[in-house]
Amino acid sequence: MDHPQANYFSKTRVEAFSDGIFAIIVTLLVLEISVPEIKDHQSGEALAKALLQLLPKVLSWIVSFLIVCVIWVNHHRIMQQLKIITHGLFWLNANLLLWCSFIPFPTALMGDYVNNPVALIVFGVVLALMAFSFSLIRMNALKNRFVLNDNIDITHYKKATKASILFGPLLYLCGAALSLVHTYLGFCVYAFIPVYFIFYNSAKTR
Amino acid sequence: MDHPQANYFSKTRVEAFSDGIFAIIVTLLVLEISVPEIKDHQSGEALAKALLQLLPKVLSWIVSFLIVCVIWVNHHRIMQQLKIITHGLFWLNANLLLWCSFIPFPTALMGDYVNNPVALIVFGVVLALMAFSFSLIRMNALKNRFVLNDNIDITHYKKATKASILFGPLLYLCGAALSLVHTYLGFCVYAFIPVYFIFYNSAKTR
Amino acid sequence: MDHPQANYFSKTRVEAFSDGIFAIIVTLLVLEISVPEIKDHQSGEALAKALLQLLPKVLSWIVSFLIVCVIWVNHHRIMQQLKIITHGLFWLNANLLLWCSFIPFPTALMGDYVNNPVALIVFGVVLALMAFSFSLIRMNALKNRFVLNDNIDITHYKKATKASILFGPLLYLCGAALSLVHTYLGFCVYAFIPVYFIFYNSAKTR
Amino acid sequence: MDHPQANYFSKTRVEAFSDGIFAIIVTLLVLEISVPEIKDHQSGEALAKALLQLLPKVLSWIVSFLIVCVIWVNHHRIMQQLKIITHGLFWLNANLLLWCSFIPFPTALMGDYVNNPVALIVFGVVLALMAFSFSLIRMNALKNRFVLNDNIDITHYKKATKASILFGPLLYLCGAALSLVHTYLGFCVYAFIPVYFIFYNSAKTR
Repeated sequence: MDHPQANYFSKTRVEAFSDGIFAIIVTLLVLEISVPEIKDHQSGEALAKALLQLLPKVLSWIVSFLIVCVIWVNHHRIMQQLKIITHGLFWLNANLLLWCSFIPFPTALMGDYVNNPVALIVFGVVLALMAFSFSLIRMNALKNRFVLNDNIDITHYKKATKASILFGPLLYLCGAALSLVHTYLGFCVYAFIPVYFIFYNSAKTR
Repeated sequence: MDHPQANYFSKTRVEAFSDGIFAIIVTLLVLEISVPEIKDHQSGEALAKALLQLLPKVLSWIVSFLIVCVIWVNHHRIMQQLKIITHGLFWLNANLLLWCSFIPFPTALMGDYVNNPVALIVFGVVLALMAFSFSLIRMNALKNRFVLNDNIDITHYKKATKASILFGPLLYLCGAALSLVHTYLGFCVYAFIPVYFIFYNSAKTR
Repeated sequence: MDHPQANYFSKTRVEAFSDGIFAIIVTLLVLEISVPEIKDHQSGEALAKALLQLLPKVLSWIVSFLIVCVIWVNHHRIMQQLKIITHGLFWLNANLLLWCSFIPFPTALMGDYVNNPVALIVFGVVLALMAFSFSLIRMNALKNRFVLNDNIDITHYKKATKASILFGPLLYLCGAALSLVHTYLGFCVYAFIPVYFIFYNSAKTR
Repeated sequence: MDHPQANYFSKTRVEAFSDGIFAIIVTLLVLEISVPEIKDHQSGEALAKALLQLLPKVLSWIVSFLIVCVIWVNHHRIMQQLKIITHGLFWLNANLLLWCSFIPFPTALMGDYVNNPVALIVFGVVLALMAFSFSLIRMNALKNRFVLNDNIDITHYKKATKASILFGPLLYLCGAALSLVHTYLGFCVYAFIPVYFIFYNSAKTR
């Protein structure tokens, strides 16, 4: 083909497709929390008790919601740094979206089996793979530098890529490992990740 | 980092993400209304009776649908007044979306337990927290005025922010309190809020 | 407020919100068709038989899918003719979206109770109300002509509005009435509406 | 009507509508994988075993996810080549979206009945019809060449259209036919299609 512009993807459509997926994941997460059934329909006490038992599911939902928002922020940043979306980048982005769209499953699993280490390990491993997908996108961009915006500081980008390999997947795998000691420990690590990201990044106004 | 524009978010993408979430919430709400099962599949009378019993769920759905549309209108107005979306604003917006995306749960709860005050209190408290999230966005914008459009009348914006703190959350909490007297009272307050907003705002052509 | 542009809505965001809702309705419709359960998991014959029993649901889904696409086309045309979206128009559009987002329920109802006239009447009445919502938008635009694009032929728009009042809701109510004679008659009318629209409109290249 | 531009569709809105549908399909696919129920809530071993039994569903989900991404890439390419969206093209696109939005059903079917040839045949036939919808869009564009961008090489477009008729639907029907020999053979063909597409296309950087 002799139409070079046809070889790349429209950044707007890739972003719209990704944003759609993020919006749906975030919203579907809450569907896992179903209305409890109680015998005495008018008893406030019975309903309050039944709702309290949903607490692990609600906490598990909030953690996943915040994690998906952190993913959105990372995705936004990486897209902002790209000038061109090649086929390779499209499919690495699809790989990221694959792991993202899987998140409702480990979230529901963790909500149902909050005391079962296997549930927490599955959650951690899926999110480690998701985090590693970001690193793969960064590494591909470093290999094909023409895809990056001209104002990108390559040395800084290299350092950030290395950090993303160590930091992202490693933290989630730590959570998975610690959940073998006690499931609540693993859960705390998972809850800490978005909280740290929100406040650390906001402090730096970045 | 030395690229100042990289420190802020693309307003278009934040709006697309939020619009996606609002669209999905509005549409998911109806999924809570499931087709009734009757023995005699061809009996029109039996099906009509079974459908009538879905009335509380349908009303609960309509109220939530209208409330989400009111939220969309508020969100549209606030976004129109912002020039820049900082990290702080992004996360306050994420907090708003968190409460919004939770709405299908208290809606289903209220539809199932229309005579149970606890169900109506949960609905009111969740929506009060949602409404307060709007106030937090406004307060953050007042603290960092460079994020606001240059043509914003600050005195008016301050007054509107104060009004939003008192008015929004307070009305929903009133509904929650009144549902302790009678659940139908609480429901009427919740139904009144969007109706009032629609006609009061339309009358002012704003 | 002294900022006139703040009194109207961003057409882009109203379209994005509506497009999101249409896309979700169209996709949710298929969720009502669930995988059948058979005893002998490996028997091709048993599965084929079980799938054949889903035929009413599949037909009901296709009809609803096509109707939602027709709605999208009408919505696209009406939006193309509008210059400004006032509060009144926003809420009339929200009314349209309310009936649209309800469509998955009567679709599932009709798929489950294909021989029950009440199911078909509910389907017809909901769609008649949806069609009438379009007429309300058109009537509002005629009353506030400044919202229409300058190149609109008002005489033609008036005629099209009158036609939309008679044609849209009336056809669906005919289907509802005929389903009292025989449910298949009603279903044929509902199936005929999008098919007629697609070929009649395509023939006129409009 | 005397406004020629009113006779065509806004490409942006058609793309937004399609992107919304693709994003939702991709995300809904995972909802078919539900959290397993085990007796001993804290037994890691029991949960691990139960999760392993979900493997066919997970593989079936990954294959469908990749296929939908391939569809997105094809849709992106075809839209890039179009200048104008006529009514005919809109409805051929709607036909494509119809088959796409049906994909969650055959995916769930294949996940549940991985050893039943009928499930695999249904999957193959639905995807063959989806692939043929692309060919119909291409054929319509060839018949009305004014819809194509001016820089399109018609000879190449004709060849690509012929290839799309033979290649796309035929491959899926091969998978369907081979699943009569052994269901795993059919599944391998379905899994091979996106993998081939990803690496063959990436190799050509197109």
